[in-house]
Amino acid sequence: MPDPSSSDPDNFTRRIPEGDDRRRLVCNDCGFIQYENPQIVVGSVASWGDRILLCRRAIPPRKGYWTLPAGYLELGESAEAGAMREAWEEARAHLEIDQLLAVYSIPRISQVQLIFRARLQNPEVEPGPESQEVGLFRFDQIPVEEIAFPSVHWALRDYQETMDQAIFAPRMSPVQQRPVTALPGEQNRC
Amino acid sequence: MPDPSSSDPDNFTRRIPEGDDRRRLVCNDCGFIQYENPQIVVGSVASWGDRILLCRRAIPPRKGYWTLPAGYLELGESAEAGAMREAWEEARAHLEIDQLLAVYSIPRISQVQLIFRARLQNPEVEPGPESQEVGLFRFDQIPVEEIAFPSVHWALRDYQETMDQAIFAPRMSPVQQRPVTALPGEQNRC
Repeated sequence: MPDPSSSDPDNFTRRIPEGDDRRRLVCNDCGFIQYENPQIVVGSVASWGDRILLCRRAIPPRKGYWTLPAGYLELGESAEAGAMREAWEEARAHLEIDQLLAVYSIPRISQVQLIFRARLQNPEVEPGPESQEVGLFRFDQIPVEEIAFPSVHWALRDYQETMDQAIFAPRMSPVQQRPVTALPGEQNRC
Repeated sequence: MPDPSSSDPDNFTRRIPEGDDRRRLVCNDCGFIQYENPQIVVGSVASWGDRILLCRRAIPPRKGYWTLPAGYLELGESAEAGAMREAWEEARAHLEIDQLLAVYSIPRISQVQLIFRARLQNPEVEPGPESQEVGLFRFDQIPVEEIAFPSVHWALRDYQETMDQAIFAPRMSPVQQRPVTALPGEQNRC
């Protein structure tokens, strides 16, 4: 991760606005306060029978490695709609959302990942512009040595541990026990 | 809600950057892209026995009305840590997080609320700077006519419906069936 301050806009200064208790990015000219918020990543572990959808990344970071369909929630979008959009963009997949599988907070990079358990509406998937290749893998076929990010490992494990449960509490990230690395796009948005 | 464009920094223009498919806020001088992300609100329904912690707001919006301890997740914070911080800031309360009660997506204001079920470590609560008053209410004592936001009603209802369940799937917002209004701070961050 580059130093966040290196990407600050030229005309902004970090200072504590009146009535606040944290340093914020404030425009030197007009006083506009640019609040910086943690980012929400939405994604899914999407199954077709006993197979899971994975996408081989066509873009950095971790180009050529396999990931789950996931990305940043956009303005005006619900979390579920965002997860469905990402599956379409990356794998031309149509999802039916089941329930929330996990909430992974990754404070080091100010990211919260909302990962859903989902079913594919049909097995017809193909790479979108950000994927080199997409595939449906049984668990024993997953290329575990070529997984893009730790959180993909977490989600696949959490999916396996809950796949037979109709109702379960979403998994949280025991961050202190886990390596912290982001899902796709981290470097795109620093 | 004011028109979001009215709070754009003076020197930025909205346009689609190369390789993107959405309009972004781009600095006219240096090309810096200010990605605008949905905001994460973290909060809790915190109980002490059969009573629930509520806070009477000392600040707009909805000053004087009762709300749950909740607010924006800060950079570098996990969702759970943010919910605990908000309970401290607003009610000097110490929480023990139980599990995720609900994920309310409110696309109209680009907000995702993560509301936890929590227990108070002790019943000693007092107003922080953003609260006029705090209190522990049995359900039949809750001032339902003086609740600040619809999502507070949702969370109290979802809490009641799941309070006897050790394990449950977090509730999502059936947005199409519900009024959409934000938890505290909406107007503070437009």
